[in-house]
Amino acid sequence: MTVNAPTHCTLPPIRTLPTRPSLSFFKRRQPIFLNEAPNPRIVLVRCDKLNSDGLGPMRSVVETESVSGNSSASSAIDFLTLCHRLKTTKRKGWINHGIKGPESIADHMYRMSLMALIVGDLPGVNRERCIKIAIVHDIAEAIVGDITPSDGVPKQEKSRMEQAALNEMCEVLGGGMRAEEIKELWAEYENNASLEANLVKDFDKVCGEI
Amino acid sequence: MTVNAPTHCTLPPIRTLPTRPSLSFFKRRQPIFLNEAPNPRIVLVRCDKLNSDGLGPMRSVVETESVSGNSSASSAIDFLTLCHRLKTTKRKGWINHGIKGPESIADHMYRMSLMALIVGDLPGVNRERCIKIAIVHDIAEAIVGDITPSDGVPKQEKSRMEQAALNEMCEVLGGGMRAEEIKELWAEYENNASLEANLVKDFDKVCGEI
Repeated sequence: MTVNAPTHCTLPPIRTLPTRPSLSFFKRRQPIFLNEAPNPRIVLVRCDKLNSDGLGPMRSVVETESVSGNSSASSAIDFLTLCHRLKTTKRKGWINHGIKGPESIADHMYRMSLMALIVGDLPGVNRERCIKIAIVHDIAEAIVGDITPSDGVPKQEKSRMEQAALNEMCEVLGGGMRAEEIKELWAEYENNASLEANLVKDFDKVCGEI
Repeated sequence: MTVNAPTHCTLPPIRTLPTRPSLSFFKRRQPIFLNEAPNPRIVLVRCDKLNSDGLGPMRSVVETESVSGNSSASSAIDFLTLCHRLKTTKRKGWINHGIKGPESIADHMYRMSLMALIVGDLPGVNRERCIKIAIVHDIAEAIVGDITPSDGVPKQEKSRMEQAALNEMCEVLGGGMRAEEIKELWAEYENNASLEANLVKDFDKVCGEI
């Protein structure tokens, strides 16, 4: 399976944002994403064409001054650009049932995260981990879409496709500890391998009924 | 300001879900939401009319056996039902700019949560708290909607409306420690009162440009 390459901006930076106190984190002498290179700064770069799909003709990036830093920051941007599809892809179950205003995959994961946020304390359950699992549990659908039983894809094949998609996404993210964490959280959910994963699976079952 | 009451199901429970290992959390001798009452169980209740807005004719609730438990569980359900609007309300900035497929408020908060998840380690910054702030920072918009500068609402009045809406939502949630946490997280963001809030505000500024 291949991943469609995220849109890249091809022209050089044309404007550096003025210093603002509220953007101080981006001015710190450490990167905002992935913590691998020094001296990040925000720039706006002009994209090669105007569009109306929500990405806009301009985009900002967290640019760092070292090559590895550029790679790290642009990987995070590419990852987030890929994840944009989670907002535009509607959940198939809603579409198949003719429900007006179907929720997006991102909508769904947001709702699950909110359920994890308000859940009561349970012995042995790390609520923060539940929230993280909720945020990533369907993230591979940014590439494979929302595969439902109506698609006739065997469960094992669906799982294989999603694992491959997740690996691709983590490569786009540039690897590193955050990519590893996302893989762990996703696998934990997929394999129902912890109390936290079990709880989030319960949320997923109840979610569509509330 | 008043809150439209969430839709309530008026008929008694008609079917109890069969025991499933994966729903074991709901069978535990403690409540799943708000941790205030014993013996929760999942039931499906018939709503008073069929609809096609995504809520469906049936809904499941986490029902507990004590009065306080029923109150607690139904409060969580009412809160989540109210938060359903975060998925159906599109962000006004996208609409005003004629962007095709505008993102929902929930889409936006999901994206912010994802940014907080992949951000690098920063001294003194609690990443888990950043994620929680991202999940709640625009939650009051479930009631007041997405107020933008084009609406001509003075900043102070906007803040007052959102604070009142948040208080209403926390009442719907039934108060308690989770409601207090949501208030704290929201106020922290609103007042830019911590490193975590400052970072999430930075994400919000960059978010629309990526």
